[in-house]
Amino acid sequence: MGRWEPNARGRLAEAALDLYVEHGFDQTTVADIAQRAGLTERTFFRHYADKREVLFDQSGALEALLVARVTDAGADVAPIDLIIAALEEAGARIQEEPEHARRRQTVIDANPTLQERELIKLAALASALAEALRQRGVADPAASLTAETGIAVFRVAFERWAAGDDRTGLPQVIRDSLGQLRIAVGGESR
Amino acid sequence: MGRWEPNARGRLAEAALDLYVEHGFDQTTVADIAQRAGLTERTFFRHYADKREVLFDQSGALEALLVARVTDAGADVAPIDLIIAALEEAGARIQEEPEHARRRQTVIDANPTLQERELIKLAALASALAEALRQRGVADPAASLTAETGIAVFRVAFERWAAGDDRTGLPQVIRDSLGQLRIAVGGESR
Repeated sequence: MGRWEPNARGRLAEAALDLYVEHGFDQTTVADIAQRAGLTERTFFRHYADKREVLFDQSGALEALLVARVTDAGADVAPIDLIIAALEEAGARIQEEPEHARRRQTVIDANPTLQERELIKLAALASALAEALRQRGVADPAASLTAETGIAVFRVAFERWAAGDDRTGLPQVIRDSLGQLRIAVGGESR
Repeated sequence: MGRWEPNARGRLAEAALDLYVEHGFDQTTVADIAQRAGLTERTFFRHYADKREVLFDQSGALEALLVARVTDAGADVAPIDLIIAALEEAGARIQEEPEHARRRQTVIDANPTLQERELIKLAALASALAEALRQRGVADPAASLTAETGIAVFRVAFERWAAGDDRTGLPQVIRDSLGQLRIAVGGESR
């Protein structure tokens, strides 16, 4: 990237999100995004494969972070606490740019195809976390159940946080949601 | 449907599943399916919108069954027990044709596009169950957490059952999986 395009990637991402919020994802073209950012389409395609990629380019880094935390954690931590601690850390990162995260979610909520993409990314994340638990010696089905449950907690917590019901930080909402899950599933067994 | 085509729908479904297993979903055409079933393409399209629909035509009935069970249950049942009881009943129905369910899963597992479709259907099911819980007066986030967790338990249980690790019935595997989830999430809170 030339020095005549300082922070081209960030400018493109901001321009794209602005346009997706203003006009809708489907109505926005790569040409619109490049123009808004004061850059060329060619520059856009040096940074992103397509306009959808702008919304999902963090998924890989998020998965790598979570898997590394699970893999590197001490031996005596319960699997669910390990998954939730990793998700809290991811939540803290997301929270560094709360408006970005909320606007991104608004765009995704308005578009079924993007919702599907998000679902697929989250399912892949759950699979990767289950595999990381198995690598630590956690047997199935506990590994799968714990990972799937962790992602379910994260999704519900993120939605609550993004809807802005309260001013609690995302890591805290994740922790609270785990507490509420424990109450919800802890009922009498038949 | 004319009486000259007895059980056309079932014959088409069986022929489709045979061909998907033998040759792969992508390699199978509607013409192939009709020919195998001894029927016409026109008849196929009277029963199914496309070849994917053959694999997912039960989703609507499954969702309706589950939502009805949640809606009609007695007032004193804990939400998680209610969701799991409904899923056990769905499991009992699925188990009436175990080979059909397992072969269908084999086809889906071999095809990323079908896996995505299945994910979307399950996410819609979780949303419908959460809404049914809210209609019963269960507040969020408990409603969402319980429904999402129920579907996670169902997915993991179905996979275990379909993989044929043991001879336990699907409803029992669902019940056991809930028990294991309770152990997995019940660890010490930090």
